Amino acid sequence: MPRPITLAAAQMGPVSRQESRTAVVRRMIELMRQAAAMGAQVVAYPEACLTAFFPHWWIEDEAEVDSWFEREMPSPATQPLFDEARRLGVGFHLGYCELDTSGDRKRRFNSSILVAADGSIIGKYRKIHLPGHADHRPQTPFQNLEKRFFDIGDLGFGAWRAWGGVAGMLICNDRRWPEAYRVLGLQAVDMIFCGYNTPVHHPAAPDHDRLGQFHNELCMQSGAYQNSTWVVGIAKAGVEEGVDMIAGSCIIAPNGEIVARSTGNADEVIVARCDLDLGASYRETTFNFALHRRTEHYGMLVERTGRQAP
Amino acid sequence: MPRPITLAAAQMGPVSRQESRTAVVRRMIELMRQAAAMGAQVVAYPEACLTAFFPHWWIEDEAEVDSWFEREMPSPATQPLFDEARRLGVGFHLGYCELDTSGDRKRRFNSSILVAADGSIIGKYRKIHLPGHADHRPQTPFQNLEKRFFDIGDLGFGAWRAWGGVAGMLICNDRRWPEAYRVLGLQAVDMIFCGYNTPVHHPAAPDHDRLGQFHNELCMQSGAYQNSTWVVGIAKAGVEEGVDMIAGSCIIAPNGEIVARSTGNADEVIVARCDLDLGASYRETTFNFALHRRTEHYGMLVERTGRQAP
Repeated sequence: MPRPITLAAAQMGPVSRQESRTAVVRRMIELMRQAAAMGAQVVAYPEACLTAFFPHWWIEDEAEVDSWFEREMPSPATQPLFDEARRLGVGFHLGYCELDTSGDRKRRFNSSILVAADGSIIGKYRKIHLPGHADHRPQTPFQNLEKRFFDIGDLGFGAWRAWGGVAGMLICNDRRWPEAYRVLGLQAVDMIFCGYNTPVHHPAAPDHDRLGQFHNELCMQSGAYQNSTWVVGIAKAGVEEGVDMIAGSCIIAPNGEIVARSTGNADEVIVARCDLDLGASYRETTFNFALHRRTEHYGMLVERTGRQAP
Repeated sequence: MPRPITLAAAQMGPVSRQESRTAVVRRMIELMRQAAAMGAQVVAYPEACLTAFFPHWWIEDEAEVDSWFEREMPSPATQPLFDEARRLGVGFHLGYCELDTSGDRKRRFNSSILVAADGSIIGKYRKIHLPGHADHRPQTPFQNLEKRFFDIGDLGFGAWRAWGGVAGMLICNDRRWPEAYRVLGLQAVDMIFCGYNTPVHHPAAPDHDRLGQFHNELCMQSGAYQNSTWVVGIAKAGVEEGVDMIAGSCIIAPNGEIVARSTGNADEVIVARCDLDLGASYRETTFNFALHRRTEHYGMLVERTGRQAP
C-alpha cells in the first residue's frame, strides 16, 4: 500500500560570519514557502545552518565559542520558523549547534531535530561521528575543529514515528559510516535526513578533493539501498568565509537512485514525492534482515575500534 | 611508499550443465595465461566457477547434490590449474563448492580460497550471507536454493597476509552487506576478492531487475571506499542453463573508483596495476577507524538481527 509523502531538501548557500540568525531564518522561511508551494509536507535544512560553520576557525575565547550555539529551541530568533511551519502546515528538520547547560558541566553538541507542523519537537539527534581534529592547525587554509568544539552525541541513533513512517537523522560525517545507517535500518526507518557542511578541499589529503561529490553520493546511495530507506541529503553549499563547500543536495530512493538533485550552490529547494513503501520489496527479499543477517559473525564491529592486521 | 601489485579478474561466461570440470579448468588456464601475459601476479576467478550454478535448480537426490561439490582441493580435475599457476608464478583466488566430511556430519559450503604461486593454500573462506530460500518454488523460472544446499560459513570473515599486503574474501551476496566489508576493514585488508553468480531477474521482485549492475557497483564501490581497500569483483556471466546473469566484473580502488571493467558477458580478463598503499591517505584521515569509530553506539548491530520499529 503506497504511503506517499512529499519531502523537500532546502539547500542553503553560504552564511556569512556577520549574518544574524534573524536574517538566516528569513532565508529559511522563504525556502519553506517555496517548498510548501511545491506540496512539501516536510522541509529539511542543512547541518548547523543558523550560522556560518565556525569549526573552520580556531577560537579560544569561551564566550565567543558559546555565541555560535543555541541555548534554547525555539528561541526568539528561530520562533518565526516554527510559526511559519504551523501556518503552512509543514514539518521540518533543522540542524543547529546546541549548548546544553542542564547537567553539571556545560556541553556542546552538533544537533538536529524533527519538528511537527504544530511546532512540537518529535525527536533530537546529537552528532556521533565528529570529524576533524582538536588541535590548532594554523598552517592550513581552514580548520575542521569539530573534535574541539563538540561533545560526542550521547543520544544514540534514534528513530521516531513521524509523517506516516519512521524517521531518523544523521549529520554530515555520519553519512560516511555504514554502521550509522544500519542502526537506523534496524529500527525500520523509512526516511533519513542528513544535513552537511563539507569543504571541497581536504587540507590533510588534497588528492581526495576531486571526489567530494562522488563520495557524498556513494555513501548516501549505498546507505539508502542497503537499508531500504529514503535518504535526504541537504548541503550548506558555496563559498562561506573563504571555504568552498560541496553542494549536491539530493533525495535518494530506497533502491539507491537519486530522484531529485540540486543544480546550484546557493539557496535552492528540491522536492520529491516519496512513497515510503517503495523499500518494502527490498526489505522482504535482498535485505530481509531477520532472514539474512548473521550477527554471530559481526562481533568485531563492536569489539574492535581501530584497524589491526592479522 | 607504493606497494604495487597487478591484479586480474578472470570473468567467466556460462558453464553448461554437461561441461566437465576438466573442460572448465582448461578455460580457466587460458584466462590465467592471458592474465599472466598482462603482468598479473594474482588471478581471481568467480564464485563456484567449476560447474554450472546448480542452486538455480531443485535437486532432491543426495548423491546428485554431492556431485556438484569438491571433496578435495586440489583434485585431479583442478590440479592442472595449480600446476599452471606454479609454472607462471602467479597466485589465484578460486570459488568452489566444498563438501566437508571431516566432522560428524556432512557439510556443504560455498567456499573460496587464496592460493600462492607455489600451490599452497593461503586462506579459505566459507560464504556467510546465503541468499535465496530453502523451499521449493517450482512456479519461478529458476530458483535460488543456496539456503537449502549450503551451510552457513563457520570460519568468519578471515584476512591473511599475502602478496605484500592483507587479503580477504567475500562471496556474491556478502558484497551487499556493509558488515562483511567492515569486519575485513578492521583487519586492515588491502584487497578483497569477491566472485559472484547474480541473475539479472529477481523472481520475487522483478522491479529490481533493471538495477542489477548499478547495485553491484554501488555495494562494491562503497565497500572499497569506506574501508580504504581494493575490491576485485568477478562475475560468472551470460546465459547459463537459461538463467541470464549480470557481468560487470571490475577492479575498484580504495577511493571507490572503478579502474578496470569487463565489457562482455563471456570469458574475459581485466587487469589493473594496483598500489596497495593508495588507501593510506583515507585510513589516516576520513577513515581513521581508531580516531572516529564510536563502537559504544553500535551495539544494536550485533544485538538485533531483524528490523524492529520504535
